[in-house]
Amino acid sequence: MRIKDRNFISVKGLKSEFERLKNLTNFSVKQIPFSQLDSWHFEEDSGNIVHSSGKFFRIEGLRIETNFRYPGFWEQPIINQPEIGILGIVTKIIGGVRYFLMQAKVEPGNVNIFQLSPTVQATKSNYTQVHKGKQPLFLDFFLNGSKAKILVDQLQSEQGAKFLRKRNRNVIVEIDQEINLPPNFYWLTLRQIKELLAIDNFVNMDARSVLSCFPLTAQEGDGIYTKSQIASWIQGLRSKYKCQTESIALKDVRGGWHIDDWQISHESRTFFSIIAVSVKVEGREVRSWSQPLLKPSNIGMVGFLTKRIKGVLHALVQAKVEPGYINTCEMAPTVSYSDPEQRLKSGQLPPFAELFIKATPEQIKSSVIFSEEGGRFYHSQNRYMIIEVGENEELEIPSNYIWMTFDQLLDFTGQTSLVSVEARTLLSCR
Amino acid sequence: MRIKDRNFISVKGLKSEFERLKNLTNFSVKQIPFSQLDSWHFEEDSGNIVHSSGKFFRIEGLRIETNFRYPGFWEQPIINQPEIGILGIVTKIIGGVRYFLMQAKVEPGNVNIFQLSPTVQATKSNYTQVHKGKQPLFLDFFLNGSKAKILVDQLQSEQGAKFLRKRNRNVIVEIDQEINLPPNFYWLTLRQIKELLAIDNFVNMDARSVLSCFPLTAQEGDGIYTKSQIASWIQGLRSKYKCQTESIALKDVRGGWHIDDWQISHESRTFFSIIAVSVKVEGREVRSWSQPLLKPSNIGMVGFLTKRIKGVLHALVQAKVEPGYINTCEMAPTVSYSDPEQRLKSGQLPPFAELFIKATPEQIKSSVIFSEEGGRFYHSQNRYMIIEVGENEELEIPSNYIWMTFDQLLDFTGQTSLVSVEARTLLSCR
Repeated sequence: MRIKDRNFISVKGLKSEFERLKNLTNFSVKQIPFSQLDSWHFEEDSGNIVHSSGKFFRIEGLRIETNFRYPGFWEQPIINQPEIGILGIVTKIIGGVRYFLMQAKVEPGNVNIFQLSPTVQATKSNYTQVHKGKQPLFLDFFLNGSKAKILVDQLQSEQGAKFLRKRNRNVIVEIDQEINLPPNFYWLTLRQIKELLAIDNFVNMDARSVLSCFPLTAQEGDGIYTKSQIASWIQGLRSKYKCQTESIALKDVRGGWHIDDWQISHESRTFFSIIAVSVKVEGREVRSWSQPLLKPSNIGMVGFLTKRIKGVLHALVQAKVEPGYINTCEMAPTVSYSDPEQRLKSGQLPPFAELFIKATPEQIKSSVIFSEEGGRFYHSQNRYMIIEVGENEELEIPSNYIWMTFDQLLDFTGQTSLVSVEARTLLSCR
Repeated sequence: MRIKDRNFISVKGLKSEFERLKNLTNFSVKQIPFSQLDSWHFEEDSGNIVHSSGKFFRIEGLRIETNFRYPGFWEQPIINQPEIGILGIVTKIIGGVRYFLMQAKVEPGNVNIFQLSPTVQATKSNYTQVHKGKQPLFLDFFLNGSKAKILVDQLQSEQGAKFLRKRNRNVIVEIDQEINLPPNFYWLTLRQIKELLAIDNFVNMDARSVLSCFPLTAQEGDGIYTKSQIASWIQGLRSKYKCQTESIALKDVRGGWHIDDWQISHESRTFFSIIAVSVKVEGREVRSWSQPLLKPSNIGMVGFLTKRIKGVLHALVQAKVEPGYINTCEMAPTVSYSDPEQRLKSGQLPPFAELFIKATPEQIKSSVIFSEEGGRFYHSQNRYMIIEVGENEELEIPSNYIWMTFDQLLDFTGQTSLVSVEARTLLSCR
């Protein structure tokens, strides 16, 4: 097949294209004091940070009581974004090959300005025009009444430690009509996307989340547990673990959180802080706005421990409680923690973390740094690893961990809010 | 096969057994002023009704903003019971026949004292002994480490207009060991349970919910829409509809709600009220306690409209928004409303309701009154109907309704919090 379209681009070409876009774009993100936020303010009484329209998202307080790991309670700021947005990728078979329509997108929190994003990334406020901006391109393919063929359509959760019950629709639709590609949009094959997923901070969180639900690799063999055994394991833990949350006023959050003119932060300098930024993007058009962002204190660590059992590769999945999860706990990676350096210094490593630290090059199957949602998080990065230990490695497995194949985990992404966003990222780059 | 065990009982025998139990039991439920509640009080500041242990459930306020049907907002009292309990039924194949272990159970809100209930009905506070009572019988079969074979294990929602994000684990486990049946427990076949499901107020809500997830009937044929088309329909509506909720202090609930010494009620005398009751049950043992209950103002109406399409029976499923739902909307019956008499008088009937009112005897496939959860609701009853209209009946279907077969609906019960508790009840008695 002869490819004429200029958007059928090589991986190398796409990388230079991203460099070119960066050079063409004047991008400035400047921290400002909260008082200089435009359209955002501290709500009277609660002190919550809200948008003047009442929409988008708000920063409020949460009190959590749980019996996960050890019984206790704490309070923290959290992002409440109750609306369900659409993360959508258009796919099309062209000349017998499946292509995915991806875009280069700027987000204020990105470490590197542009990242590869889904075709459509639309909050509800976004596509119902609260911004008074343009309707996102290609949105119509994802709305009711679209004639496109739906391949994936799932409601997935996001970071439960930072978002209160946030979910987005993850959708992949297949089209067969011709479309004119606007600038910054590219048709890419799965093989190309897999290659790009090996590059630090290239593919954004929303793209990883949507792609994770699409079967990427061949079946690997049967897991040692059946689907219903695994389902029962997680439901059992969902009723065993308690995670009782209560929304409280941001100004009432206790336990070491302090607010000043520039940030809301924890006295331990761990976790995260809430900051305000002023953003200006000058490319083909000029856009400027200000907004609050959540800024993590560290680069986190996320990883799946894998091992062949009876010849079949299994990943060790953790049932993890996070306060923002809708169903108490979700299927999470073996390790997932936000403060690797402090933990290493204090010697308080979570279960299995040492295996990742000591992993030999042959054991490391994948290791890449990804950014999390640049529209809400400022420079939020995690190292994602998959390591494989020897078949004879003896491991003691606590009751909230279970071995399953990646295919089984992929199957569970079909359930609403069951496989965590970090686990989905690892699914996409296995 | 010769049946020796006294608990292999006929339907007629079970009905007299229930009568006998009622006669043996002194059951008194008396409305009391809130001030006479023992261990329950109005929390300072919020005015929420809470238990002194901080556990069980609490009555608080909720502010709701939605664009479902018509844009608007309102405030109401709601039950917040964040813990996930277990509703479990033990099943066993005896002499080639499947039996379900059911119990006759007293609940304070029951219109008729005893109702047929699952083997185990345990809130978390319940089985972690907050009451300092006995551990529920047969609970061990449902806890981690049980050797029983799991047939069903699902997290299901309950009434979203009255509960804030309440879910229970619905579990069916199969055992093969011998067990000694304590009083009030009975082995029943599916055929017997189906027969009992035709009797008003005999089978309780929790039993209906658990049984609804078990395939009861033979496959009927293919639906006109595929599973992924239906999934996309509901996900589309979940992102289209907004239902933004905010927990507020019970004392701050506005919009016609008033509190006096005896009740919290709405000035329109519709919806429901919150009352306090003192309960005394004298049977083999004496138990007495007091608690708040939610008392609906009317007997509600719930129903599926069905119709053969291309020869296959389809039910008209509604995507319905309720404030307590975790995922904005769930798959609900065609009609489901709490105030049929007022609606009839005012002429403001919901879509399709008229078809149920005018249904001829031949069109009515099922019509029975069921009670809702007697541990939280006082005399809460709904009429449940299934009607079938002729294949040639032309109906205009609004975008939040879709035709599917009961087998497809049953398949969707496998997803967490997707099929509403009212729809599950109708699934169990189809």
